[in-house]
Amino acid sequence: MKMSRMFMPTLREVPAEAVVVSHRLLLRAGMIRKLSNGLFTYLPLGLRVFRKVESIIREEMDASGALEFKPSVVVPGDIWRESGRWETMGAGMLRVKNRVEQELVISPTAEEAFTALLRSEISSYKQLPLNVYQINTKYRDEIRPRYGLMRAREFTMKDAYSFHTDEASLDATYQEMGNAYRRIFKRCGLSVIPVRADSGAMGGSGSEEFMVESDVGDNNLILCAACGYAANDEKAACAPDPVRSGPGSVATDESVSAIDTPNVRTIDELTVFLKTVSTSFIKTLIYRAVNCELDLSAFPACANLDRKKPASSNAYYPEAFFAVCIRGDLDVNEVKLAANLKASEVELASDADVERLTGAPVGFAGPVHFSAAPIIADLSVMDMHDAVTGGLAPDVHFQHVEPGRDFTPWMVCDVRTVTAGDICPTCGGVFHAKKGNELGHIFKLGYKYTKSMAMLYLDENGKQQTPVMGCYGIGVDRTLASIIEEHNDEDGIVWPMSVSPFHAVIVPIKYEGSMKDAADRLYNSLVAAGVEVLLDDRQERPGVKFKDMDLVGIPVRIVVGDKNLPNVEVKLRTESESALVPLEEAAARVSDIVKSALAATAGVAG
Amino acid sequence: MKMSRMFMPTLREVPAEAVVVSHRLLLRAGMIRKLSNGLFTYLPLGLRVFRKVESIIREEMDASGALEFKPSVVVPGDIWRESGRWETMGAGMLRVKNRVEQELVISPTAEEAFTALLRSEISSYKQLPLNVYQINTKYRDEIRPRYGLMRAREFTMKDAYSFHTDEASLDATYQEMGNAYRRIFKRCGLSVIPVRADSGAMGGSGSEEFMVESDVGDNNLILCAACGYAANDEKAACAPDPVRSGPGSVATDESVSAIDTPNVRTIDELTVFLKTVSTSFIKTLIYRAVNCELDLSAFPACANLDRKKPASSNAYYPEAFFAVCIRGDLDVNEVKLAANLKASEVELASDADVERLTGAPVGFAGPVHFSAAPIIADLSVMDMHDAVTGGLAPDVHFQHVEPGRDFTPWMVCDVRTVTAGDICPTCGGVFHAKKGNELGHIFKLGYKYTKSMAMLYLDENGKQQTPVMGCYGIGVDRTLASIIEEHNDEDGIVWPMSVSPFHAVIVPIKYEGSMKDAADRLYNSLVAAGVEVLLDDRQERPGVKFKDMDLVGIPVRIVVGDKNLPNVEVKLRTESESALVPLEEAAARVSDIVKSALAATAGVAG
Repeated sequence: MKMSRMFMPTLREVPAEAVVVSHRLLLRAGMIRKLSNGLFTYLPLGLRVFRKVESIIREEMDASGALEFKPSVVVPGDIWRESGRWETMGAGMLRVKNRVEQELVISPTAEEAFTALLRSEISSYKQLPLNVYQINTKYRDEIRPRYGLMRAREFTMKDAYSFHTDEASLDATYQEMGNAYRRIFKRCGLSVIPVRADSGAMGGSGSEEFMVESDVGDNNLILCAACGYAANDEKAACAPDPVRSGPGSVATDESVSAIDTPNVRTIDELTVFLKTVSTSFIKTLIYRAVNCELDLSAFPACANLDRKKPASSNAYYPEAFFAVCIRGDLDVNEVKLAANLKASEVELASDADVERLTGAPVGFAGPVHFSAAPIIADLSVMDMHDAVTGGLAPDVHFQHVEPGRDFTPWMVCDVRTVTAGDICPTCGGVFHAKKGNELGHIFKLGYKYTKSMAMLYLDENGKQQTPVMGCYGIGVDRTLASIIEEHNDEDGIVWPMSVSPFHAVIVPIKYEGSMKDAADRLYNSLVAAGVEVLLDDRQERPGVKFKDMDLVGIPVRIVVGDKNLPNVEVKLRTESESALVPLEEAAARVSDIVKSALAATAGVAG
Repeated sequence: MKMSRMFMPTLREVPAEAVVVSHRLLLRAGMIRKLSNGLFTYLPLGLRVFRKVESIIREEMDASGALEFKPSVVVPGDIWRESGRWETMGAGMLRVKNRVEQELVISPTAEEAFTALLRSEISSYKQLPLNVYQINTKYRDEIRPRYGLMRAREFTMKDAYSFHTDEASLDATYQEMGNAYRRIFKRCGLSVIPVRADSGAMGGSGSEEFMVESDVGDNNLILCAACGYAANDEKAACAPDPVRSGPGSVATDESVSAIDTPNVRTIDELTVFLKTVSTSFIKTLIYRAVNCELDLSAFPACANLDRKKPASSNAYYPEAFFAVCIRGDLDVNEVKLAANLKASEVELASDADVERLTGAPVGFAGPVHFSAAPIIADLSVMDMHDAVTGGLAPDVHFQHVEPGRDFTPWMVCDVRTVTAGDICPTCGGVFHAKKGNELGHIFKLGYKYTKSMAMLYLDENGKQQTPVMGCYGIGVDRTLASIIEEHNDEDGIVWPMSVSPFHAVIVPIKYEGSMKDAADRLYNSLVAAGVEVLLDDRQERPGVKFKDMDLVGIPVRIVVGDKNLPNVEVKLRTESESALVPLEEAAARVSDIVKSALAATAGVAG
């Protein structure tokens, strides 16, 4: 394509809000523009890259045997009521009533749509397994969209859903999808970190996230260099690390006794006041859980709690409170806590609720003699001895507390925030941490949607069964942005050949006379050879053209100048030196460069 | 692809609501399924056709020099306020507030989005002309979605917008788009009727619709077999046809006089009562116009009418009334009327408004002595003589009315509904009528959006100018459905090669032994030859397979049966006879059939 027919408004300056490199370079290279907060338009050059990323994903999905569908983007609200997610998806799901008062949703994801579709089509085990997908527009009403395509409100997602007669079949497809994802990211030139992940509002268990490292990533990755363990901190576990010496390391025979701690509330104040260390304290936090699906009916204080029992989904408490205990030097990870409580979200209780439940102002909660709410103890607590806790009264703490002796948790589980320095449970190595962005996610959903939405098939014996389900997503725009995050330098983008908007660009020093003739001939030869080539036929100074082409990041640049003809300069974007090549050989040389680069990242379908 | 890996749930029966053939066959062939009213999912086979139609459109748009963009589907409401269409688009536009109370629109069309984008990018005449497009999801909140993909709520549209420094440049692109559309529809195997059309809520003038004939079409097409004149009845004009003999043909010298017409209100009752014909009567209808942009300030009764003057768009009256006169045998076309009144819509006034304005119950309105609202006279009225009109009082009519002598219209214009039998204004032929569906629409928008949204560029002299704009749409799903409407028989769909989901299908009588070997070899040869081939490897009776393949409509069928081997049967979907071809020659033969069929409908880019 000739540049004069292209629309490529490059910029020297970008808005201050563009803080990450992909956002800045996408704007500067004239690839995207913002229409509104979190809403973007791809311009022609950016769209070429988008289509290539989309094609790579489609090819690898098709090669894996998945079948592409195209559901609508706007879907009826009633299927979200069936699954129970109408209530649990929260304000991030954009809902609208149409002119005939029908509730509609702008799809944030499509478990419901595909389950609704396929429950009418699947009647026999012979039709399973089935892995279906779409590459389509999604909308999530992010409160704070930012980082350009990294966290937009509208985006394009490849989402696949598989249906199976048994776990073994699900596992096979799950592994296949994992392999397809590895091929996709490799073809895109991306280094991904596959990590075990919390599956959040999606439900189910058995999942893997494909992360890229990013300074502005919204995930904390916990990594072990020794054994390769990698987990999102919302799911990471670490080896037990009981206090082995000093205060709190030895069980006490003394009974619990109250101590007067006037104006002492924080752990820091307490360690100073009691001349001890934070690992001696049992920190107790009162949490409010929303839509908790645990059965609390046997707990006396919860016997009369409001509990909803919808016909199609599990019974849940719209609101329930818990006392969460953890060793004083550790923090509670709220996602891990919510998962253990089977709650859609958890938050610290209000001061008023804390006072009502503990009988004291904030700062004096503790598990001893506490019966107003179930006690959730982190694993760390059960290894503690001779501990200090809040005393359930103003300015009172208890000392000589022995967990198990002086209080019995309602549930013991892992809710601790694992951090760098903690010990790898697999190999005993020491964890380090990185920030990361999720590009893809595969997980075993189990029966959440097929049960709540009553999807059934007949097995070999003619008996009705519920299929088990998996789910596999990749963010297309975020993948595109991540490629730039990984492939750039101070002059601009450095596209991998596989996703570059063009393979090569011809830059005549001036587009006239013999330079024009040479550039045109070379252009025609390259087009004939199947190379996607851009010809910069603009009346601009060479310096401007070079700068633009470095910014836009085309892998191969061919400069046609009077002083070198009948040779031309061939330069790779990744290198600083150029080579002089006879004009007559240039097309073949460039074609070879392009083909070998493409072959290096070719997938099973490539 | 092997059928065992495909998902193609064919049906014998379809829901009663599927009344048009494309809807029925798309469901029966397992190509689409309904998710909710007006919301559909493409299944894999249907999606293959969708992608082919989309590709044909994209290729021809690209070949014409248009540039593809990808704006978001959800767009901010404020740009619709700028253009003034927030008010005028009505309930068909789906609006929603997000969690931060921002008004959003699920795009029904994208004049605003592209104008908003490009006004920031275009600064110089050197950047024009520019023709930009997208192929993207749209949503219109149809009150009564029906006919499957023909009138869905969500659909995919190719919409292009061009920007120019002058009308000549706009005209050139408009012609180019018209030619591209003709190529697109030809490649899709569609017979389209290009008609002049009303441009409705889009604004502007100079437009052409591409129609296909359809029994359930929502457009009435007025056609002249003699000269090829074709127009939507919302825009059609006919030659004048004054009454040349009998009552009403001769001017009268008598003055207007009132006659007593007790209990006579309708034209039919009047013709009986007065023993005359309907062409003698001037029918007067009181219309209410919404958002009328005419300037009525000089008309005394309208001097104090509420008139809004927004900063960015034209002044308009939210509500205005008009007395519309037309010859008694004719009907008013409300779209033509609205266009003449520059109103967003018109409707018959309520009985109360009629009484208030005419001083009489409904049935006695007339232009003589009428001053309560501007009089709009159809062209037919000014050719009338010695006419009868309502008398502005109960049970009173006027006779001997001479238009021009006894009343002076405020505006004379063409608002008549042209019908079959009317006379072609171009050649004097007699019109016939058909129903049609609009597949595409090209029009010259003028300055409506560029002015209201303040898009400016600097011309050769450094002066600020407003670009003039054109707009070009094609409904992708509706095009797909129309192909089926035109290409089907009692057994199912008969796809043109260019859009068929597969070019050929191999049907082994049984997929085993020598038949399996032959089918597999043929399959591999066809794949190698670039033919898109389906292999029906199902364990079904041959009759079931044949019925399915006829229903699905693949152009070439190759039957591999024991009794014919080493020959195979090659049969075209369009023919009833098959030919015996040696297995070794079958791939080459079929490949030739496919390639010559594709070449016959290849476009400039094909």
